[in-house]
Amino acid sequence: MDNCKELKEHIDRFVRINSTDFEQILSYVNPVSAKKKQNLHEAGKVCKANFFVRKGCLRLFFINEKGIEQTIQFALENWWLSDYTSFSSQQASLCYIQAVEKSEIIAIDYAAQESMLQQFPQMERYFRLIHQRAHAASQYRLKGLFSQTREKIYLEFCKQYPAFVQRIPQYLLASFLGFTPEYLSEIRGKRIS
Amino acid sequence: MDNCKELKEHIDRFVRINSTDFEQILSYVNPVSAKKKQNLHEAGKVCKANFFVRKGCLRLFFINEKGIEQTIQFALENWWLSDYTSFSSQQASLCYIQAVEKSEIIAIDYAAQESMLQQFPQMERYFRLIHQRAHAASQYRLKGLFSQTREKIYLEFCKQYPAFVQRIPQYLLASFLGFTPEYLSEIRGKRIS
Repeated sequence: MDNCKELKEHIDRFVRINSTDFEQILSYVNPVSAKKKQNLHEAGKVCKANFFVRKGCLRLFFINEKGIEQTIQFALENWWLSDYTSFSSQQASLCYIQAVEKSEIIAIDYAAQESMLQQFPQMERYFRLIHQRAHAASQYRLKGLFSQTREKIYLEFCKQYPAFVQRIPQYLLASFLGFTPEYLSEIRGKRIS
Repeated sequence: MDNCKELKEHIDRFVRINSTDFEQILSYVNPVSAKKKQNLHEAGKVCKANFFVRKGCLRLFFINEKGIEQTIQFALENWWLSDYTSFSSQQASLCYIQAVEKSEIIAIDYAAQESMLQQFPQMERYFRLIHQRAHAASQYRLKGLFSQTREKIYLEFCKQYPAFVQRIPQYLLASFLGFTPEYLSEIRGKRIS
């Protein structure tokens, strides 16, 4: 397999892992390629893996009662994504994980991750910092969703993540922000005019 | 100081820490008592501590543009709470942390937590599991908020957390679920009649 340098570089930002140990860590993971719109995990099944995005973008979504896909979370390069309720309990999930773009991913199964963490306990710190960061992001995401106006939510999001707004299809961005695609078009129209 | 047995019991659920090590860990933390509605942290300041609830309940909230307090997260017994964006970066926070009831808390400052984790790396696993669980909960909270109807959000919440719904003042529950207090009264009225 290849050297998964994106993962090594990402780990290096948080903890020290030497090259020999990293080679051992790689024996626990699987590189996966996904086409645009390919599902890596489907609702009703156990979410077996934790996914690291090397290139591309994943999203976690569910299908609501109207049959509409509602995006809960995106993962761009250097983010991990899983349905952590299902992954942690190894019970059936209510969500899907899909590639938004053609993506290169590193997948690690639940049991493999546990074994890897036993062998390399310093990786507990890496994942602690990753989840702490995600927990922090979700607190401020909720703050954003509860903010005064929908228009302000969108404008703040554009300011914080301009590259992301350019890159993601608008109907997915609308779903992520809790808007209808029509409402998002309306706000964007107002800004341009 | 007392023996903080609630924290020991909680850690024991996730990792093995012997009594001698736990006594050392206690040298890094501070027990804090908070009156009902007492602020433990205020917006504009650095959120210096991570709080563990032994007894009582805390909430993380912000004040929106209309001057209304909007609750982002609650922490009952055995939950940790902080503004993790401010705590991780040690920069000014946009949120408040307040005791909902008279509460007994264990606080650990950022630098003390880092030193404690260096001395007891097995605690990295404990906090990794805590943040992974919180990350999981926030994914399903977002799923809940995006669900079809507000009434259904409330009913599902009651089913999942009946003791919590009984215990928390209704205006705080309304804020947490993104409702007005009037709308919550309306739903509750419909259920009783």
